[in-house]
Parts: sequence; C-alpha cells; structure tokens
Amino acid sequence: MISFESDYIAGAHPKILQRLAETNRECLPGYGSDEYCECARQKILTACRCPDGDVFFLVGGTQTNAVVITAMLREYEGVIAAHTGHVSVHEAGAIECTGHKVLEIPQKDGKIVPAALTRYLHDFYGDENHEHMVFPGMVYLSHPTEYGTLYTKKELEEISAVCAAYHIPLYLDGARLGYGLVSRASDMTIADIARLCDVFYIGGTKVGALCGEAVVFPRHNMPAHFLTTAKRHGALLAKGRLLGIQFDTLFTDDLYWDISRHAISMAEGLKEIFRKKGCRFYLESPTNQQFIILENERMRELEAEVRFGFWEKYDADHTTVRFATSWSTTEEDLEKLERLL
Amino acid sequence: MISFESDYIAGAHPKILQRLAETNRECLPGYGSDEYCECARQKILTACRCPDGDVFFLVGGTQTNAVVITAMLREYEGVIAAHTGHVSVHEAGAIECTGHKVLEIPQKDGKIVPAALTRYLHDFYGDENHEHMVFPGMVYLSHPTEYGTLYTKKELEEISAVCAAYHIPLYLDGARLGYGLVSRASDMTIADIARLCDVFYIGGTKVGALCGEAVVFPRHNMPAHFLTTAKRHGALLAKGRLLGIQFDTLFTDDLYWDISRHAISMAEGLKEIFRKKGCRFYLESPTNQQFIILENERMRELEAEVRFGFWEKYDADHTTVRFATSWSTTEEDLEKLERLL
Amino acid sequence: MISFESDYIAGAHPKILQRLAETNRECLPGYGSDEYCECARQKILTACRCPDGDVFFLVGGTQTNAVVITAMLREYEGVIAAHTGHVSVHEAGAIECTGHKVLEIPQKDGKIVPAALTRYLHDFYGDENHEHMVFPGMVYLSHPTEYGTLYTKKELEEISAVCAAYHIPLYLDGARLGYGLVSRASDMTIADIARLCDVFYIGGTKVGALCGEAVVFPRHNMPAHFLTTAKRHGALLAKGRLLGIQFDTLFTDDLYWDISRHAISMAEGLKEIFRKKGCRFYLESPTNQQFIILENERMRELEAEVRFGFWEKYDADHTTVRFATSWSTTEEDLEKLERLL
Amino acid sequence: MISFESDYIAGAHPKILQRLAETNRECLPGYGSDEYCECARQKILTACRCPDGDVFFLVGGTQTNAVVITAMLREYEGVIAAHTGHVSVHEAGAIECTGHKVLEIPQKDGKIVPAALTRYLHDFYGDENHEHMVFPGMVYLSHPTEYGTLYTKKELEEISAVCAAYHIPLYLDGARLGYGLVSRASDMTIADIARLCDVFYIGGTKVGALCGEAVVFPRHNMPAHFLTTAKRHGALLAKGRLLGIQFDTLFTDDLYWDISRHAISMAEGLKEIFRKKGCRFYLESPTNQQFIILENERMRELEAEVRFGFWEKYDADHTTVRFATSWSTTEEDLEKLERLL
Repeated sequence: MISFESDYIAGAHPKILQRLAETNRECLPGYGSDEYCECARQKILTACRCPDGDVFFLVGGTQTNAVVITAMLREYEGVIAAHTGHVSVHEAGAIECTGHKVLEIPQKDGKIVPAALTRYLHDFYGDENHEHMVFPGMVYLSHPTEYGTLYTKKELEEISAVCAAYHIPLYLDGARLGYGLVSRASDMTIADIARLCDVFYIGGTKVGALCGEAVVFPRHNMPAHFLTTAKRHGALLAKGRLLGIQFDTLFTDDLYWDISRHAISMAEGLKEIFRKKGCRFYLESPTNQQFIILENERMRELEAEVRFGFWEKYDADHTTVRFATSWSTTEEDLEKLERLL
Repeated sequence: MISFESDYIAGAHPKILQRLAETNRECLPGYGSDEYCECARQKILTACRCPDGDVFFLVGGTQTNAVVITAMLREYEGVIAAHTGHVSVHEAGAIECTGHKVLEIPQKDGKIVPAALTRYLHDFYGDENHEHMVFPGMVYLSHPTEYGTLYTKKELEEISAVCAAYHIPLYLDGARLGYGLVSRASDMTIADIARLCDVFYIGGTKVGALCGEAVVFPRHNMPAHFLTTAKRHGALLAKGRLLGIQFDTLFTDDLYWDISRHAISMAEGLKEIFRKKGCRFYLESPTNQQFIILENERMRELEAEVRFGFWEKYDADHTTVRFATSWSTTEEDLEKLERLL
Repeated sequence: MISFESDYIAGAHPKILQRLAETNRECLPGYGSDEYCECARQKILTACRCPDGDVFFLVGGTQTNAVVITAMLREYEGVIAAHTGHVSVHEAGAIECTGHKVLEIPQKDGKIVPAALTRYLHDFYGDENHEHMVFPGMVYLSHPTEYGTLYTKKELEEISAVCAAYHIPLYLDGARLGYGLVSRASDMTIADIARLCDVFYIGGTKVGALCGEAVVFPRHNMPAHFLTTAKRHGALLAKGRLLGIQFDTLFTDDLYWDISRHAISMAEGLKEIFRKKGCRFYLESPTNQQFIILENERMRELEAEVRFGFWEKYDADHTTVRFATSWSTTEEDLEKLERLL
Repeated sequence: MISFESDYIAGAHPKILQRLAETNRECLPGYGSDEYCECARQKILTACRCPDGDVFFLVGGTQTNAVVITAMLREYEGVIAAHTGHVSVHEAGAIECTGHKVLEIPQKDGKIVPAALTRYLHDFYGDENHEHMVFPGMVYLSHPTEYGTLYTKKELEEISAVCAAYHIPLYLDGARLGYGLVSRASDMTIADIARLCDVFYIGGTKVGALCGEAVVFPRHNMPAHFLTTAKRHGALLAKGRLLGIQFDTLFTDDLYWDISRHAISMAEGLKEIFRKKGCRFYLESPTNQQFIILENERMRELEAEVRFGFWEKYDADHTTVRFATSWSTTEEDLEKLERLL
C-alpha cells in the first residue's frame, strides 16, 4: 500500500528527530523561553528579512488561526475569507468559537479576487445600516490555497493595498507555505510575504515537522501579551522546546526549502503520470496537492492499492480526489502508482 | 548547573523518542485514527479496568481542562474548584474563555475538603436566588494537587459520593497522576480513580512525554462528537500519531509507572537531603514536587548553581521555592545538590 | 413629515400604555414571576393551542435569537439560516458572539427552499470530513421574512419534516408574526406555527409593544434553567411586569390580531397607491413591508416629505426602498403619500 | 399586604408614564438616534459636569455590566471586583459568558478596601508567573454596594488613583446611584463620580424607570462602535425612545434626585421604626436598602403581612432580611409596618 492521502501521513523529517534526540537531556525552561526557540525565531526573521519582527510558535493550524484572529480582531469585528477558506469550512467553527464571524466572500480557484474584496469593503461602508453588521476587521487568505493554487505577487500586492486602504490587517495562512514558495509558479519569496502581510504563519506540521506552526508578525506588531492569549486558548506548550528545536532545524541549512522542493518535485512527477494516463485535473495546481477527477469505478479499484483523499463528488459517475506529496514521498511511490494506473 | 525547576525541563523518556523514530516512516491516517492511538487507548483502558471506557488524546494540560470542562458543562453551569486549583489561578482564564465560571471553594493543602463541597452545594440549592447564580455543574480537583499533596481514597470516595448525590460529574486533573499513584502515601490505584471519577486525564507532558494528555471517560461517557469539540478549540492534532505512539510506549511494559517511581525515588532522596540540612518544608508533600522555605540570602546563593522554581514569598526574610523531580533527575543531581546546600 | 420608515417608529398601542398606567402602583415580584406574566403566558398558549407549552418573555429580537439559539444548540453545532436571514446579516454577529456559526444556505425571496435544506443536510452527513465541520443543529427561519414574504403551510410542513428527519429543532423568528398570520396570503394559523415549529417567538416590538418578544416552546421543551441562561446573556428584565402586562394586553380581546390587521390593511392601501402611480415592486410582499424600486431623483425628492427605509441600490439609477406600516399608520398618512407621489 | 421586597416592585414614576403617553404617537428613528435620547444625554452630561462625555442607554443592570466590561477589557484581561460584588455572585456568570474572569478580592461591608486593591495589583505584577494568569484590566465597584453601603470620597479617590497608577479603568455600577448620592452619609456629587471614574452607569430600573440604565463615559472615551458591541450582545433596543424619554424625564426638574430623596427619607423612617422596636441591623446602611436580623419565628409571622427580601441565614435562630424603599413607598406603608412590628 502506498499513500498520497495527505502531507501529514508520515512522522517528521529524520533530521528533526535526530535533533530532538541530541538535545533531549538538556534542561531547558518552558513555554518557549528556551534558547532553541530564540534561535529559531532569529533564523526565521532573517529568512523573512524582517529583523524587528516577532515570532511565536503554536502547535497546529486551526489553533493558530483561532488564536491569531481573535488576538487581532476587536470585539465587533469579523474576518473576511474566501467561501472555500479553511477557516470558513473545515475548522469546525473554531473562529466562531472565539466569538467572531467569518465573513465569506466569493472565490476563484480557492483565491480571493482583489476586486471582490474591494467591492465587499466598499459596499459595507456604503451601507447605512453597517453599524448593525459585523465590521470587517481582517482579511484571511491561505497560500497555497486549499486547492493548491497560488496568489501572484501582483494579486497579493493588490489585496495588501486594499487592506492598507481600509486599515485592516492581512493574515496569510501558510500551512503549506514552503510548497507555495518553491513552486515553479511562484513569483514571491518569503520576504515578499513578510512585506505584504501583517501576520502570517509558516506551517511546520505539513512541511516535515511532527507538529508546530511559526507565526510571524513582521513589524514587531505582535499583540501585547500574546503568550497569555495563547495560554488562555490552551495553545501554549509546556515543553516549548519541541517547537523551537523543530523550527531551528527546519531553518538550518535550508531544510525547510529542501523538504518543500522535494515534495514539489514529487508532485510534478505525479502530475506527469496522471497526464500521461489521460486523467483529468479538477484544476491546475502548481503545488503539492493535486486534484484529479476519477471515474468512480476506477477510483474504487485504485483504493485497494493506494491511499488518497476523497475531495468531493464531481458528477454521478466521477469523483474528485486529492493526491498530496510530502518529505516522505519517494520515487518508488511514484513508480508504483504509475504501474497501478 | 543542575535543575529541579519543574518536571518538564527535559525532553521525552528515551524509549519514547526511540519509538517515534522506529515508526517515523509509516504512513498513518491523521487526527487520532491511527493504530497506535487505538492500541494506546486499549492499554489505558485495561490499566484502568474500564474496558468500555473512551480515551481521547489532547496536547497539553490547560487545553485538556478547557476542552473537557466546556464539553461537559451545560450553558448555565460553572465548575467548582479549590481556590488554589490550576484552573482557578494559573491558566490565564482558559475556562472563562469558554464562557464558564470557576466557582472557587476553600482548600486545605491544595485539596477540596469534602465537607466544604457539601456545604457549598447545599447552600447553593438552599438559596432562593440561586437561579440568578452560576449552577455548579462539575467538580474539578487535581491529584496530586498543585502542592504535591494527595487525596486519600476515603476523601475521593466522599467527594465522588457528593457529586453523585448532586448529579454532577467529578473531573480529576491528573497532570502528574503517575507520581500520585506510585507515592508511598497513595492508597489508590488508577482503577480506583476510574471508578470514582466521571472523567480524568493521565498526564503525559509532566511524566516523560514530549507533550500529550490522555483523557479517560471510564463509562463510555465521552460527550458526543468530542473530536469536533476538540477541533473547534484548536486542540485536534493533525499528526495524532505523535500522541498515540507516546502513550502506547508509556503504557507498554509499565514505562509510565517506572518513570513515576523513578521520580518519586529521587524526590525522597531530595527530601532527605533538605531534612538533613535542617531546611523547613512548606508542607508535607509525598510526591515529586517539594516546597521548601529558604532564607532569601541562601536562596540567592543557591540560584547561582541550581535552578528551581519560585513559589511565593513566605515572609520578609524567607521564600517558598519548589523543587521537582522527573524521569531525567539523576543520583548525580542529588549528590551535587547535597554538596551545595 | 409622514413616516413609513419602519414598524417601530411610534410608541406602543394606546391600550398598552393604558394598562401600564392602571397597574403601575401594584407591587409585583420581579423577573417574570408576576401574575401578569403568568396570565399572558396562559393566553398565548391558548391562542397557540398548546396548553402544555412554555412561554418566556425577552426584550428584543436580536437578544431573543441569540438566547434561544445558544440555549438550544450543543457546543459543536451551528444554526442553518437563509443567506438573507436576520441572524446572518443584520445582528452584528450576535449568534457568533455566543460561539456558534450561522450556516448560510441559498434563499429565494428571503425564504429557505425545502429542497436546498434537504440537500445541505444530506451533503453534510455524506461528507467524510464532516466531523471537522460545524454540525447543523437547528434551522432558523423568519416568518414573514426580511423581505415581507411568507412561507406556505406546505413549505413549512416540508421544512418541519426535514428537521424532524434529522432530529434538529426548527426555530421561527416571528418578529412580525402577526402581520404574517393575518395577511390574505397566509394559509396558516398560530396553532399551525406551534405545531410545526419546536420554538418560535411572537414579536411584540414591531407589533405594537414598547418592547418585548414572547418565546414559545410548544411542547414543554423549554431548555432547563432557561431563566438563568437569559440572565447570563443580560436578557432578564428586573421589572418583568413590563413584558407581562404588554403581552397580556396584546392577547386580550384580540388586540394583537387587530393591530396586525390594521397594519396589513394600511399596507394594502399603500401597495394600491404605488401600483396606481406605476411604481415597480422589488418583489411581491403580502405583509406590512413593501419594497419599491424608485428612480434616484424621485427618491431624493420624496425624502423631503416622507421618511422611508433605504434598502439597497438597485442599479445605477434606481434604489430599492422599504415602506412599512404599523398600528400607528393612518388613512391620512396614505392620503398624504398619494398626493406626494 | 405591603411590600418592601425590593426597589423594583412597582412600575415607573408617574411622570415617566405621562411623558411616554404624551410622546407616544411621535414618529422617531430607532436605536437611540431620536431627539429624546439626545436631549437626555445632554442633560446627564450637564449634571455630571463632563460636557465632552458620551452617554449610551442600555436596558438592564446585568446587561450593562456585561457589555461595558467586555467592551473595555482586552482579550487577556479580567475585572477586579469585591467578593460580594454583583458581577461576582448574582449575575449568573454574565461576565464569564463574555469570556472574562471576575477577579474577586476581599471586601469590607461590601466595599473594596483600597489597600487590598493595591496589594492585589502589586502582587500580580510581582509574580514571576503572571503571564500565566488573568491580567487585571478594570476595577468594578458598586455604589451604593449590594449592602447599601457607600464609598467615601476619600476611598473613591484612593481607588481611582490606584487604577490610574496601573493604567486600568475604574467602573462604577450605579444601579442605585441616586440613593447613594442623596444619602446624608454621602460626601460626593455625580460630578465627583464622573471625575473619579472612567465609566459608570446611572441606574434607572431601580430609581423610578420601567427599565433602563445610562452608561456615562466622562471623557469621550466610549469604545469605538459601542453601538455595534451592544447590538452584538442583544442589548440594543429598537424603540430606543423608551430609554431616551425615561431618562429625559428623570433628568428634567431634578426628578431623579427627588425620587432618590423620597426613597431615602422613607428608608430613614424605616430604620427609625426598626430601631424603636429594638431590632438589630446586620450593618449600618445609609441608603434605601436596610438589612435587619430577625428571629425566625417573628420573620415568619411578619411574612403573612409584609413582603421583604430574604438575604441569608444569620444563625440557627435568626435570618438576615432586606427591606428596600423606592419612589412608590408611602408614609402609610411605614405606618402599617410600625403597627405590625
């Protein structure tokens, strides 16, 4: 059985496990105040070219979205997201759980269209009754999106400019940020992200770590007492070293980018195989998640030999499925898949 | 520098790291549905002698308290806790963050006194205006307590009976449960805990794991869709294997109890050293946390060589400090400490 | 200046003020335990033909929606509503403020389409990942809707049946219930509403009261300790008599229906005037709110003499405006309007 | 039967009802934007000698406390209150419902002792672990307190200074403010309150209104979009006129103070009667609530003829009861009581 089910099916990149073992007996203070956390923060800020920024480590993606969003919104504000955004659909109401509405706007290929965002904000403030509505207090986007698609630098600049014009922060969910930035389709660096966003996170869980996400506030704009806010949401790890050591390793010798490049290379191989076999793609994704439309019968045959993700029904006879690659995907996995198709 | 600062200063017990490494390349489904989680659940239920129970793995202690308490309380209920309970003081308002009040009652040595609990509940329902007050919907206690003290079986039976009489669940925070159960002062087994409580958690973070707590619902009484509730609170780990593999290892070949016994043995050595040196104890703790009253000057001298926890000012000239042992404490640590005192 | 701005522009029906004055010096217990509240409850239950039901008085519509919805949803559930539902758009996030998501589904003329509801629920439970999503735990609809439109008995029966099939309660927001039930287009009685819904409220604020809404739980299904839940949400009035006396008056000698009939009669006159003048209607509303499409210039002229509600831009040259009638609308108001048009 | 059960047993002062009737047919805009609200705001600000302040009308006391506190606290903050404070005990967890902890400190006669407040704040910031605790973000006090007692100007100045030193707002719950300010024991004016507090409310419900509380932000420091926050908490009245007209009437021709003086005069008569009859007082209250210790047998006899409030058991044979006066208390009520005792 080979698996392309998701990018979190395997453990951590071996270098991470090795570092955890090497440092295991060291006595370190808790809650992120250890030297590995500090070192990881510095390396991340250097990579992002925002030396005065803040970095805070959290455990998982939904948690990160909830804690960041609630810490940055005011009481009467909600967060704008694409209708297909992870916070809109697949987080079991974690944002609403903090008391804030997700203000859904239409999407295209999983992305917010800058013009639609402008229209939303313009209409909101144009509405006489807007004091009876949820104020838009932040824009949330994921990059890559839930569909594996990417914003262009131009699109992100436009969205960033709209946010600046309306004085609301732009938050980028980078659960799979590495895959986005090393993709051939990318015209951005992580420094561009840091420049254009007010807060974003660099995903660890889906890019080779056991767990962990690094939230970056590029302009020393971390909300006051963010640690307390994190604690209050059950998001503060006692052995903070677990996150610090992992991110320190990921941002040493380009490991984060190497892992990302490997997964993208595997994804390109995967695409090539599906293309050769004449499979249809649900959309063109330049990152590590590929959405394929399979005949239901063929899907069921394949399921006996390969694990992949169910996405949604396409029509009565077809299903959209998701294949994902990660640090653990191998050439042999691809070869086996090719033979099976 | 030696450290007795807390029981979460080192990494994981080496056997845990070893198992994480051995299983690292296995492709496993996410969110706790993998075979290691399942296996760990079975071992825990066997240890607790409640084969029909439910087990759910969460990441940290504050998170566990918040998720369990909110999942089990009704809208208009709060949770009773000792004035010194962890949920009352040291969780940054994580319970209130879920909308529920912590109803503090007086404590003795960190413990709820059964008679005080009975009086509270009796007075509440005797008050004509109780519909304008927060209904007591659960009793929370920690075992060992924040002061390292232990409930006797008789005390826990009494509290359990009061809860049953008032039809409210009893929840035991076992962040350091292992240390409590292997202590010479303990007259309870984990099966007693499972029999007397409606829900409790077996702490991993402070008993040798990198992170992780195992919540046990002994009578198949896990609230419906608890996974969704956990997700909603940002508490659901994508790579659930990280928790499953750790707890599977802890509950294989008695590792959890061996770790606990080692720490207790070290704590007994520590007490003996302080006793010989004529130090005063703040209270008699039979577990892995020891509270010592030091002259301020001596404390400052000691700080140059040893890390320990500040607890609180005792008087103008003395401070209460905390020394904790764990899986990583060694005989050499004790010998060095003895030489320093 | 005449005003058709809303149905809450005037004070209370004079009979209500008169009863408040007559009873003013009586010493009555607080919080809804007085005899007028009790009497009003009985009259309402009799009108609804559900003698075993419960009635609870709250102050306003948004408050009622928030308190009822949070009291009836479980932690992990959200409420389904039409995209145009009041709780979706115009309550400033009051539902999310209680931690619950509003699950918006498409609408037609402001109404939930039964087939769309069925599809939503079917798809939700058909989705493998639904445990990562917000569970649909209630259906919310308004009758009349925000657009003045009405469900037919057949539609409500269908929606009620879908809710029953999925074991989720059906909640009807009756802020303007009177206008809906006395409309010529209505084929339902209040007893039908009570039979088909699990909870609904009879609006007072917009039907002649100073304030107040009567929540009806037709099958003695008021959540336990609902008074405490209301208090907790700041929704419990100390001088509960203010609500009891008003509803007692409204449900004495058919005052509630007389007020409703008067407003509907005025609305019919209003429609006739607009029709004669050749104005276009945004949609066909059989109740007390009428939505007219005006040329912008004409709208601005009219604003000098008449107050009405801005609804939304229709196109570059036209605006949709709302005219509402109530107990205080008079024949003279209509005549003046006719002269002005 | 005469009643001293509370100060909200009767309807409104007749002048209020009269004004409601006189203005009843006027067409006014909703949500507090009408001219009566505006006029009432100006009169209140003039009375408070803070012409640049803001005033916002809410419906009831618990609601006001919850909305004001949540609007002014940051995410990670709680509110300090006396252990006996209304928000601590008798609001069913309304503050916790907004996610914030009530940080209870000891009280004397229902009052916060300035030294205890200073100690609390000093200790909090002196605690190394305070980032794991709820930050004190506001001080709440009630004046008169729940026991009818009053802060002296000196005490309030001290508390105000402590708040200023720690940069946290001081909030005064004035549910019965009138009674406090006209009491012979008072050495403060409402302008003193406005000068020393950052926010306070002038109670209407318990001082002659049907409902309504006027929140005053003396230094134009109302939180941004407070109307939206109120709406979100279900606290925004559609017919805002109901509050505006009442407060406009209360602050015309000193009605608010006349009502207060009448009730205080009645309370003094009441005290005199109890004193003459040799009854013991639970404490010395200079306002409209009197706490008397009655033998249980005598209490039961009295209950047949007089309504009063149960407060708490005093000892096995005695009970503390509450007698309250209001605008509706008459000399005849007192005479009857005297005859009955």
